[in-house]
Amino acid sequence: MAKDPTKHQLASLDAHWRAANYLAVGQIYLLDNPLLTRPLTAEHIKPRLLGHWGTSPGLNLVHTHVNRAVKARGLDALCVWGPGHGGPAVLANSWLDGSYTDVYPDVPRDADGMRRLFRQFSFPGGVPSHVAPETPGSIHEGGELGYSLAHAYGAAFDNPGLLVPCVVGDGEAETGPLAASWHSTKFLDPVHDGAVLPILHLNGYKIGNPAVLSRLPESELDELLRGYGHEPVHVTGRRPAQVHRELAQALDRCLDRIARIQYEARTEGATARPRWPMIVLRTPKGWTGPRTVDGDPVEDTWRSHQVPLANVRENPEHLAQLEKWLRSYRPEELFDAQGRPTPLVLEHVPEGTRRAGANPHANGGLLTRRLPVAPLERFAVPVEKPGTTLHEPTRVLGELLAQVMRDTARRRDFRVVGPDETASNRLQALFDATGKAWQAGTRPTDEHLARDGRVMEVLSEHLCQGWLEGYLLTGRHGLFSCYEAFVHIVDSMVNQHIKWLKTARQLAWRRPVPSLNYLLTSHVWRQDHNGFSHQDPGFVDHVLNKSPDVVRVYLPPDANTLLSVAEHVLHSRDYVNVIVAGKQPCFDWLSLDEARAHCARGAGIWEWAGTENGSGEPDVVLACAGDVPTQEVLAAAGLLRRYLPRLTVRVVNVVDMTRLMPRDEHPHGMADFEYDALFTPDKPVIFAYHGYPWLIHRLVYRRAGHRQLHVRGYKESGTTTTPFDMVVRNDLDRFRLVMDVIDRVPGLAVRAASVRQEMADSRTRHHAWIREHGTDLPDVAAWSWTG
Amino acid sequence: MAKDPTKHQLASLDAHWRAANYLAVGQIYLLDNPLLTRPLTAEHIKPRLLGHWGTSPGLNLVHTHVNRAVKARGLDALCVWGPGHGGPAVLANSWLDGSYTDVYPDVPRDADGMRRLFRQFSFPGGVPSHVAPETPGSIHEGGELGYSLAHAYGAAFDNPGLLVPCVVGDGEAETGPLAASWHSTKFLDPVHDGAVLPILHLNGYKIGNPAVLSRLPESELDELLRGYGHEPVHVTGRRPAQVHRELAQALDRCLDRIARIQYEARTEGATARPRWPMIVLRTPKGWTGPRTVDGDPVEDTWRSHQVPLANVRENPEHLAQLEKWLRSYRPEELFDAQGRPTPLVLEHVPEGTRRAGANPHANGGLLTRRLPVAPLERFAVPVEKPGTTLHEPTRVLGELLAQVMRDTARRRDFRVVGPDETASNRLQALFDATGKAWQAGTRPTDEHLARDGRVMEVLSEHLCQGWLEGYLLTGRHGLFSCYEAFVHIVDSMVNQHIKWLKTARQLAWRRPVPSLNYLLTSHVWRQDHNGFSHQDPGFVDHVLNKSPDVVRVYLPPDANTLLSVAEHVLHSRDYVNVIVAGKQPCFDWLSLDEARAHCARGAGIWEWAGTENGSGEPDVVLACAGDVPTQEVLAAAGLLRRYLPRLTVRVVNVVDMTRLMPRDEHPHGMADFEYDALFTPDKPVIFAYHGYPWLIHRLVYRRAGHRQLHVRGYKESGTTTTPFDMVVRNDLDRFRLVMDVIDRVPGLAVRAASVRQEMADSRTRHHAWIREHGTDLPDVAAWSWTG
Repeated sequence: MAKDPTKHQLASLDAHWRAANYLAVGQIYLLDNPLLTRPLTAEHIKPRLLGHWGTSPGLNLVHTHVNRAVKARGLDALCVWGPGHGGPAVLANSWLDGSYTDVYPDVPRDADGMRRLFRQFSFPGGVPSHVAPETPGSIHEGGELGYSLAHAYGAAFDNPGLLVPCVVGDGEAETGPLAASWHSTKFLDPVHDGAVLPILHLNGYKIGNPAVLSRLPESELDELLRGYGHEPVHVTGRRPAQVHRELAQALDRCLDRIARIQYEARTEGATARPRWPMIVLRTPKGWTGPRTVDGDPVEDTWRSHQVPLANVRENPEHLAQLEKWLRSYRPEELFDAQGRPTPLVLEHVPEGTRRAGANPHANGGLLTRRLPVAPLERFAVPVEKPGTTLHEPTRVLGELLAQVMRDTARRRDFRVVGPDETASNRLQALFDATGKAWQAGTRPTDEHLARDGRVMEVLSEHLCQGWLEGYLLTGRHGLFSCYEAFVHIVDSMVNQHIKWLKTARQLAWRRPVPSLNYLLTSHVWRQDHNGFSHQDPGFVDHVLNKSPDVVRVYLPPDANTLLSVAEHVLHSRDYVNVIVAGKQPCFDWLSLDEARAHCARGAGIWEWAGTENGSGEPDVVLACAGDVPTQEVLAAAGLLRRYLPRLTVRVVNVVDMTRLMPRDEHPHGMADFEYDALFTPDKPVIFAYHGYPWLIHRLVYRRAGHRQLHVRGYKESGTTTTPFDMVVRNDLDRFRLVMDVIDRVPGLAVRAASVRQEMADSRTRHHAWIREHGTDLPDVAAWSWTG
Repeated sequence: MAKDPTKHQLASLDAHWRAANYLAVGQIYLLDNPLLTRPLTAEHIKPRLLGHWGTSPGLNLVHTHVNRAVKARGLDALCVWGPGHGGPAVLANSWLDGSYTDVYPDVPRDADGMRRLFRQFSFPGGVPSHVAPETPGSIHEGGELGYSLAHAYGAAFDNPGLLVPCVVGDGEAETGPLAASWHSTKFLDPVHDGAVLPILHLNGYKIGNPAVLSRLPESELDELLRGYGHEPVHVTGRRPAQVHRELAQALDRCLDRIARIQYEARTEGATARPRWPMIVLRTPKGWTGPRTVDGDPVEDTWRSHQVPLANVRENPEHLAQLEKWLRSYRPEELFDAQGRPTPLVLEHVPEGTRRAGANPHANGGLLTRRLPVAPLERFAVPVEKPGTTLHEPTRVLGELLAQVMRDTARRRDFRVVGPDETASNRLQALFDATGKAWQAGTRPTDEHLARDGRVMEVLSEHLCQGWLEGYLLTGRHGLFSCYEAFVHIVDSMVNQHIKWLKTARQLAWRRPVPSLNYLLTSHVWRQDHNGFSHQDPGFVDHVLNKSPDVVRVYLPPDANTLLSVAEHVLHSRDYVNVIVAGKQPCFDWLSLDEARAHCARGAGIWEWAGTENGSGEPDVVLACAGDVPTQEVLAAAGLLRRYLPRLTVRVVNVVDMTRLMPRDEHPHGMADFEYDALFTPDKPVIFAYHGYPWLIHRLVYRRAGHRQLHVRGYKESGTTTTPFDMVVRNDLDRFRLVMDVIDRVPGLAVRAASVRQEMADSRTRHHAWIREHGTDLPDVAAWSWTG
């Protein structure tokens, strides 16, 4: 299929490239005079010059050539632009192919539209300087580097007809997440997945330094890329005509090879892991821009990274240089008198949804189907009486997820990702429904590995997150199951995803995509094997600082509440849902119906656990959020019932943490009257919380009852020890909670001094016992609500 | 130098390995009967079996052979154990070489000590299951995987006499940070740095899956490792005698090669980047453990990851299997009747500080020298009157850091790391004193690259953090300069480092090491080029949840306060210091003397900015923390002075955020009387804070004045816009602050209604102006305190 491009083809490719470059420079510099119909003057120049030129010509080059291949071959291609801070390039291309105007009719494809395109770029009230949600055709923000390749693979999974060209910058390539992403080749199924075509763009420099990969001998770089599982095809040059020819040929070669790989796997049944092709493109940074500025070399150095000519308004020499630079693209050949791109420019631009700026996969909500979630009744655990039976909540959830896997076996639009912990997190029922994606070597003793598996395990939280983001943003569904402490590894990635969703929600043309769902388990209170390094409940704090339109946090206290929350989040859109739930045996508190009602309210009184009997206001409120705190609060309520039977105690459980927030700060926030109805405006509240106690204060400091609020939680007292010792060390145990009640309820300190002493003695007894036996106190280990 | 090991050598190596394996199994299982002098019974078994066997035999093997090489060659070697969750192995070796008993005399090297060693492992009140601060000879916690190689390089930098063997697990190798770390070869100077010897241990499995690298064809793996810049030497096997022989030879080959590389670089002046040797060790996971358990294969599968025999107390068959397993090591040959290791076992164990468990580099505080920090007077900016001159604070700091670089030119114990942003962060004065470390190819246009440079730039926050941690824990000094938003990339790493320091501080034998100092700049308020993706001030929130013994947070408001804070943190020990400071021109508020006094207090009243004149309590307090909020508060104070001259206003600036915390929650916390003296117990406080406003509430909710506290800060309203528009969008601007004062001071709402309207009008005027001109309002742009 690969043929040498004709002279005419080369001319039109070059025209498109020049047009895109012209538009990129225009966006960085021009307020007006977009077609240079008048001599350029200072008034035409933006007062603040902001943006990134250096990477733009390379992105434009790739975009130009991808256009040709897509049109010539009728491909369905979703592009991922790793160096997305080269926003001007991607915006230029979208404007050229008309997709920009489709979405933003106020920026037409003519001179006036060009002026608006230029003016709005990096301008107050305009568009960001990076590829962003506002950019048609994109699923990838180019600000925080490192995730392009993982996003590309995420988009390709279960999209067998899709090609994902992915430009990886040589700066980005130094990041850890990107370095790990190359091994995605061991997880891509040539039968059921699409193809990723990495284009490693070695323009040689970062902000202020050469890039490491660009300074390796070519043979060493080739070894590296072959070691990643690729067959690199090199295109190197600085003469446009030569580079156009070689890049066109390289692209054809790679696409032929991909077609061959897919044919062999899909039709001939080949099972050997293919060596996927990729392109190494080596062109100068800031190519076609100023060679030198004020005597310093700029083109092909780091100095072209942002704005090569910095003082255009003030310095007539810079102004002249800019005008010369812009005119070097010969805009008169590229745009007609009305500012419309000429047929030569548009010759290789595809049409309709084949345009990069209009590919529906980049607006994944267009393609999303409602996930089939079977009735929860099939999975719920029976609860006759609270606190008599035990289940591992995540194991129960695993059965539900397995059914979702089965029910999407043909559609293939649901995946579960996790860092090698699916079984450790007790979700192993999934393996009755699907395998673990795996294309590397196998052995007879292996279990559950499958080329077409839809559970994805790799010991990289970054890859899990990046793959899933790509999968969701292209309209499919998923869940990330992770050790609670180590989800901090992707703190920064989730920041970026939340920012993406926040912005996307404000764009009417972006259709809602399935939520990013975290199941955080193997949590802080049960790290029996691992201890302090595995104890960190701070992810909830981290996400609750972010956009309340996007963030939801759930702490279901038992198996049935976990099911109810899971059903809710799997159907939700455009959220980041964080679920924290244990994998260890946990008492069942609520029947499915009760769980549903409780989760719908998000927080509620557990009458059966308290001693109010409709007596009006209680003497004290015991509140809890999280499975372990709930157990300790109920045990404390039991102790109070026994030792202080006349004390009226209310037990409140919180599932949805954002319910605690003020109504004007989060859409789920309770009104003050609701809050007071649960927690009272003035009674002591002892709140046992799963994580850092300060979070509760940060959420409720505006409430009337805040002065009476006393929170217990994790305070970094961690180690390898027994489950009950963990709560004792952090003052979250039942005995301490009873002591807190005695200390806080007016008048009780004296009246209940002996009870308080008994509680303190129990803690001492515990300490001596575990030092001696290495296990929890027998009465604690044997405790149950009804026992 | 490489010779085949003799038969006797092989026998003693094997004896050491068996002894270490025996001790590892004993730690996981045994409470008593350590030497198996009696038949094993259920009472000898721990009630809870916790730990990781799978990786232990491999770690023991490497440790055994490193011992031999160190002793035979007289090497100074610091070992880094990537799979540090194999804690039993490293503890076993430390006990065998006597270093454990040196540090913990209550665990002697005899039968009673062995019993204690076994019992304490993963036991309440005992030692963690991972390699941890408690482990002699370690600088690396093996819990969160991915950082071993970066730590190893950090230890090797500027330690030319040091060898750092680093075991990388094949699980860990899938992580992003580890994948990026291989490229450290481009930053290691064979002249001034020591050597890292990576030992990639392919035991084939993670918790529940095969490891990717272990399932590549060997040729593909070799390409990968050669592409990383290494020359791999393979050792593969499952017959101990063969593996001992081959590993000894491989180690000798690698050490010869390293010696040759160093000789060529140091003596012959070679400058070509060498291809450093490394070992690929392929042995079964759980080697020498049970082949099968209950019919399932265990050795050489993932099932050996933790505790291969899970029900030893209850299941007699498991008990018998365990006894057979333990006896298979022939303990009677390894330990004498008193439980002391026999001479055969100890033959290759080095002595004194050459023992891996006693290497002083692993207790870096032993080697730390006080950093020479030149008198600040040489760098301070003159301030005659507050708010009349402007400086870029980080540029001023750069001069100080450059002088530290000069003053450590011979000692070489100070490095500055950052992701390609040293110059972008305005620290370029450093390049007058040293270069940027770089061993890859160079071009004539390059600037500041140097083989021996001590500024380290790589576009990986993970690498920056990992290198610096390794450098600090081995007793040297450093600073990490980072874009504020992207420091979240290392959230999880800093968690682990804080945990390390917290624990290390409690161990008398661990000497204090230099603090980990962050300079967070290019901060949320000034992301003119980049916008929303680069705006996140949440790192402060993240670290303030962690151990208050370790965490310090400073927000110096100008150049001289930044200098004062920097001097303090550079001399400090065992802390994580977070400094947030801008790089953009900022008004100078305090002279050096004033800055020093202010920073020593951590928070104070700026009398000159308020209108109290000793009048007693003010009507309102304007508080600020951070450079941009300080400017807005002072501008607001100026507006109030002009528009409401009779209002008495107090201005309080906070540099040290932890001063706000209660005294019993942080050692820097103010007593309530101090807090009240600054903020008053009952007057309205308008607090303009650099980051998320809720943080301030979380810190001060217990203070009397909290009810009157109103906080403004960043609330995720970010984009690419002007600096003043950023504060307007987030309601942190001077006009809004004045409106807040009017709204909160009793009686002012009516009296000052027209002023309020004027402020609101100013905001509207701003909005119209920036939409039109793309720049800030002229009166805002031209504002100065005295103007």
